Amino acid sequence: MVVDLGGAASFLAAHDNYIIICHEHPDGDTLGSGYGLCRILRAMGKKANVRCRNEIPKKFGSLTVEDQAFEEQTVVAVDIAAPSLMGVGVCEQYENKVDLCLDHHASNKDFARFSLVDPTAAAVAEIIVALAHELNVTITKEIADCLFTGLTTDTGCFRYANVTARTHRLAAELIDCGADAEGINLLQFETKTKTYAALERLALESMEYFFDDRCAVITITKEMFAQSGSNESECDGIASLPRQVEGVMVGVTIRQRSDGSYKASVRTRNPVDASLICTGLGGGGHKNAAGCQLGSDLAQAKAALLAAIGEQL
Amino acid sequence: MVVDLGGAASFLAAHDNYIIICHEHPDGDTLGSGYGLCRILRAMGKKANVRCRNEIPKKFGSLTVEDQAFEEQTVVAVDIAAPSLMGVGVCEQYENKVDLCLDHHASNKDFARFSLVDPTAAAVAEIIVALAHELNVTITKEIADCLFTGLTTDTGCFRYANVTARTHRLAAELIDCGADAEGINLLQFETKTKTYAALERLALESMEYFFDDRCAVITITKEMFAQSGSNESECDGIASLPRQVEGVMVGVTIRQRSDGSYKASVRTRNPVDASLICTGLGGGGHKNAAGCQLGSDLAQAKAALLAAIGEQL
Repeated sequence: MVVDLGGAASFLAAHDNYIIICHEHPDGDTLGSGYGLCRILRAMGKKANVRCRNEIPKKFGSLTVEDQAFEEQTVVAVDIAAPSLMGVGVCEQYENKVDLCLDHHASNKDFARFSLVDPTAAAVAEIIVALAHELNVTITKEIADCLFTGLTTDTGCFRYANVTARTHRLAAELIDCGADAEGINLLQFETKTKTYAALERLALESMEYFFDDRCAVITITKEMFAQSGSNESECDGIASLPRQVEGVMVGVTIRQRSDGSYKASVRTRNPVDASLICTGLGGGGHKNAAGCQLGSDLAQAKAALLAAIGEQL
Repeated sequence: MVVDLGGAASFLAAHDNYIIICHEHPDGDTLGSGYGLCRILRAMGKKANVRCRNEIPKKFGSLTVEDQAFEEQTVVAVDIAAPSLMGVGVCEQYENKVDLCLDHHASNKDFARFSLVDPTAAAVAEIIVALAHELNVTITKEIADCLFTGLTTDTGCFRYANVTARTHRLAAELIDCGADAEGINLLQFETKTKTYAALERLALESMEYFFDDRCAVITITKEMFAQSGSNESECDGIASLPRQVEGVMVGVTIRQRSDGSYKASVRTRNPVDASLICTGLGGGGHKNAAGCQLGSDLAQAKAALLAAIGEQL
């Protein structure tokens, strides 16, 4: 059932002993919003813990709080559009037990007892700030650091199309509350692992241009993962590189998975539609960012992809 | 003579036939603030042109306005801390004729008849927004695009230490006025020339690590400029790359100038002080970003730099 901000706030005020679930392969928004909400509930004198299927990545370590001991009563899902995104294990345990879902995906499946979904929010962190106001909870520096992390990571440091004037106003408010904006952005956007830096270098060396330089393709093989010491979990950032080159309308990153098959990430500039390129190959996505699975024959995979790109260029 | 915001606004309201000077090798703030102010003055019914010693880089082309014909009476310098920064030719013509200087450098030489200098402003664009309010000029979409460009470029897209809550509030206001934040950020931060992309790749290939990987050094030679087709004018972004690697406290970019000599850009993470490294070598700068000139012998230059870095690590 859909609730509004006041409804969600009333629900949170009326219950206790919270377990807050973040999505698997957690990012800065699910963790920042989850731990931010956890701190807000504790500030209200309630008990609350955060649960995530995966280990918390080191760069989000400072957001976390120690677990409290209590018997779980109320389940809140944060930044989770469908139960499967809680991940194996957590999903089976909680999929029919989520009391309140706080989300910003228009595709939210309304799987919880109550859902507050605001697709105009750049990050769930925007919703959590609004809840803090509604609940009259003072945003401490620690809460502000959590929510600023959510805001900045889900917007690529205020760069993506989802940023609105409200996003910037909330960032200002969180800085006023003590958020360490500079330190958070340095950690999230200006820090690469040495293995990622090595992979990025190999990836750039692999870049090829097609269609009069209007398409650039990076190819990452298993050998490159081995050579750099990197792995699939840290290579998401590479997908944005080919499109950065001036004149490139379609930037493609093809990467080999551990089973030997390939998958492609496609990024386009307007008016080229990435989802049209990928749906024809059995994939999907958004207008400027889409993806698809390819077979295990790289030459064949590339040819099929380039044919689909040629049709759109 | 120092003036406050009201004083600068009164000055602008009282005069006419403006020439607005931007600094040489212009960046987004001097141009965005210059053309933003030009549009504001024209909206007030005054005549105004912008002057810059260099050609306007293509990525700032949309900020410009056509020149008007009139006899220059009033000279305003924007984002210029000292007359020499106007560049050869412009400096000789105007250094003793600047009526009003609008700047945010604490080092401003107070060389103009009147100076409004706010070192707490992340960009001069912040000062121009305040002036527009003071002058009761409506910020149009075109003015907002100019000022948002200044704000975002001088803060590395809201990433640097100079960003305050006010910076974000002004960004929100400019978006409300119609600024195309997404398009501007895409153009300024997600677009590299093909020659720059090629240079970046060669630069990353040159990266060496020292002091247990706490120092990373990129070396760019004249041959690399030639091989990539790039040049010194577009390589500023590379200076941030070595420090991005996790664990690197000192990131160095050494680049060869056309005369064969080398210069170093040093970026540090706290607590390492970049200016201490560079002042010992005759250079200078800030705590986390400094630079120095080196001789024409690369091996010797590197050795001297590494010795200075070793002392700080």
